[in-house]
Amino acid sequence: MSLKFEKNQITKKSLDLEKWYKDVILKAELADYAPVKGCMVIRPYGYALWENIKKELDQMFKKEGVENAYFPLFIPYSFLKKEKEHIKGFSPELALVTIGGGEKLSEPLVVRPTSETVMYDMYSRWISSYRDLPVLINQWNNIVRWEKRTYLFLRTTEFLWQEGHTAHQDHDESGKFALKALDWYRNIYEDYLAIYPVIGQKSKKEKFAGALTTWGVEALMPSGKALQAATSHDLGQNFAKAFNISFQNKVGRKDFVWQTSWGLSTRCIGALVMAHGDDQGLILPPKIAFIQAVIVPIRPDENILNFSREIKTGLEQEGIRVKLDIRETKSVGWKFNEWELKGVPLRLEIGEKETAGKIVTIVRRDTGEKLKAKKEKIKIEVRRLLTEIQKNLFEAHKKFVLENTHLVTDYKSFKEIMTSKKGFIKAFWCESEDCEAGIKQETKAATRVLPLTEKKVNGKCIYCSKPSSFHWLFAQAY
Amino acid sequence: MSLKFEKNQITKKSLDLEKWYKDVILKAELADYAPVKGCMVIRPYGYALWENIKKELDQMFKKEGVENAYFPLFIPYSFLKKEKEHIKGFSPELALVTIGGGEKLSEPLVVRPTSETVMYDMYSRWISSYRDLPVLINQWNNIVRWEKRTYLFLRTTEFLWQEGHTAHQDHDESGKFALKALDWYRNIYEDYLAIYPVIGQKSKKEKFAGALTTWGVEALMPSGKALQAATSHDLGQNFAKAFNISFQNKVGRKDFVWQTSWGLSTRCIGALVMAHGDDQGLILPPKIAFIQAVIVPIRPDENILNFSREIKTGLEQEGIRVKLDIRETKSVGWKFNEWELKGVPLRLEIGEKETAGKIVTIVRRDTGEKLKAKKEKIKIEVRRLLTEIQKNLFEAHKKFVLENTHLVTDYKSFKEIMTSKKGFIKAFWCESEDCEAGIKQETKAATRVLPLTEKKVNGKCIYCSKPSSFHWLFAQAY
Repeated sequence: MSLKFEKNQITKKSLDLEKWYKDVILKAELADYAPVKGCMVIRPYGYALWENIKKELDQMFKKEGVENAYFPLFIPYSFLKKEKEHIKGFSPELALVTIGGGEKLSEPLVVRPTSETVMYDMYSRWISSYRDLPVLINQWNNIVRWEKRTYLFLRTTEFLWQEGHTAHQDHDESGKFALKALDWYRNIYEDYLAIYPVIGQKSKKEKFAGALTTWGVEALMPSGKALQAATSHDLGQNFAKAFNISFQNKVGRKDFVWQTSWGLSTRCIGALVMAHGDDQGLILPPKIAFIQAVIVPIRPDENILNFSREIKTGLEQEGIRVKLDIRETKSVGWKFNEWELKGVPLRLEIGEKETAGKIVTIVRRDTGEKLKAKKEKIKIEVRRLLTEIQKNLFEAHKKFVLENTHLVTDYKSFKEIMTSKKGFIKAFWCESEDCEAGIKQETKAATRVLPLTEKKVNGKCIYCSKPSSFHWLFAQAY
Repeated sequence: MSLKFEKNQITKKSLDLEKWYKDVILKAELADYAPVKGCMVIRPYGYALWENIKKELDQMFKKEGVENAYFPLFIPYSFLKKEKEHIKGFSPELALVTIGGGEKLSEPLVVRPTSETVMYDMYSRWISSYRDLPVLINQWNNIVRWEKRTYLFLRTTEFLWQEGHTAHQDHDESGKFALKALDWYRNIYEDYLAIYPVIGQKSKKEKFAGALTTWGVEALMPSGKALQAATSHDLGQNFAKAFNISFQNKVGRKDFVWQTSWGLSTRCIGALVMAHGDDQGLILPPKIAFIQAVIVPIRPDENILNFSREIKTGLEQEGIRVKLDIRETKSVGWKFNEWELKGVPLRLEIGEKETAGKIVTIVRRDTGEKLKAKKEKIKIEVRRLLTEIQKNLFEAHKKFVLENTHLVTDYKSFKEIMTSKKGFIKAFWCESEDCEAGIKQETKAATRVLPLTEKKVNGKCIYCSKPSSFHWLFAQAY
């Protein structure tokens, strides 16, 4: 696939976002199409982003007492049927193993589409008293949901994620925990991925199969379409009853546990790519970029190289992820393009003038701005610029989201917006499934969430004009 | 399963190793049986060991330029057939997905038993010039090889591992890389898991399906049986030819790459458990123990608790993984047993005397030795003891291996040893498959490796008396 393009010859983002997205992922070597339909390969440059995200999120989990574990890939088919809504939601997407070790299996095994059922079967064996609670377990694993068409990172048959699954004594505690997961996700999106998400409650139709309430993290993309970027579920006692996870409570009576589950997947890398890149390629937020600064010596001169190495060592000691590009088979111009394509936040150019004057020319990837720093100031300057780029990317995305969130009071405007610029629409909705379905059919826009920040007010449903209490967020979605 | 035992009531290791092994894993909550036959659940306390091992190994890989990536779980069945030996070796163990998204698939998908084929198909697309080499990629993932009976950690249908896959310009470079992987594994086993392994070349019959040469890391267990603890393969150009991974070399001619693959799995946790535990339970090597020191206050007295917290904070600042056990529902004796069962290297007891005198009573898990340390010396003392326990465990295992490695010159002794105390046997072998098969049938002992340290000498095959050049290592194996 990637051989069809000359290096760096990518479609302009401003001309065709979807094509640009595919080009930039393949050319920057974040990922590639796998030989199996619907699957992808995450290449080292893309996987490094996932590793950084994982590291940050994992620390947040552990700080709050969540422990990692590993549960089996295969789930007996009968388990999925124990929670009625759950099997209804997932059955069209299942991959089934029917042959193992050369023999036909008596019961097919499901390749996990999510692990509620297999985990909760174990929970029912482990939990017997309130002293065993809360159970706070997370796993980092691979998930399979059948897809025929691959949308790199955004929709693939197999993907990587984390899935947290907790069990508590009461609904108050579990409800709070479901919200805590949202805080972690907000933190990752805002402070690391530099994306401004909207967080809120999903409608009945859009909630997780088996949950009481689903909370969604929604990210608006430059196409004006929304991306479901993470979810957290208040499962109530639905699974606890289906899997008999009961415990003796403090007053000696039998009760069922209250549960949550919450997940964030490699999809977030797709969000990151789309939100920040430009015609030249990726722009990676410094906090999760694999390489934060690349040093490009202008000529393979020994003095220049020595000075470059000195700068590199100094930055490394400062904890900055820096690369020195001394490949002799590539021209300087080629290197500039390559690292721009790959979205490295800062480029440090070192030529004769720089070496003689003990200065470094720094180029920002986000603004293209060029500046010079003295050798003794370079660490502080690079730190400052990385912080500024991180902030700038977030502010730019936030501005974009706010500018593309439309408060709409009539259905005609709703339709107009959804056939032109798109974006988020805030509108009253009576919460009937009929209206939701009607709007979706006519505008392709679904309810995304009822934002956490929305207050109850009196209004009229944008579709049927019946009394409504909340502004819901609508958008077309990936 | 675990409910059948009273807490800490485990079979004595000295009486029944196999039963002890199962008991201790279940009771210390390292793992549990999964609902699907042949599978297991790795519980948080066991998974934390894997996380520590992973962290250390991953750093070693990265230091040498190996990058992590992720390749798909599903492999087209036709891919496995491309390398003849490979499919022959793996076909009895495959799990096949035949239904996806509600439809019968035209070609079954194999759930990866190892990833050579799917990775090398991608390598053939990515590599075209010597400038693209070497490719040094690793992945941490889950693997499926069909098993009907579970042996916790040692033999399960699904397991976790890392698989490294490299491609090089010539055989000299790839051969060296295969050996480098062995160094990493030796390092992990000796310096972290405190296990003294024997490393060497596998016989033709025992080598990886598709490799030129396989190198094995073999660990002797207290049962006198060996455990294959990691492997590294010199794949030559076998897969390169099957998957057409060719490149233009430095003189402009087309050549096939030379490859290696190497892996270490969660099996190493089984080795660790078996090698070090005693009648009281696990003994974890400090470097990879999740908790290195547990503080048990003798009474829930406020002064005692305050002093305990002070000690905890001090040790944490020193980077020691410490836990303060203040559970009020458990007695002190129960806690002592629990943490012994769980193999925590050091127990710190703090009662009235300790609090009054500003001292701590320290108990070593490996020797049971009790000693006292003044508050101001506690950090140094704990560090020293952890280092000593780590060393002591390794020395003990090394001693055991050396004492149970028998240089044998006649087949009668060979048979006697294998029906009594077992262990490693060093014996001349003519390298014919017939002798190897004969020995195995009559003694259940297979060739394990030709140790790297063996020199060529003249001798006679232990089985057929024909001229032989090397002492091979034989053992019964898990």
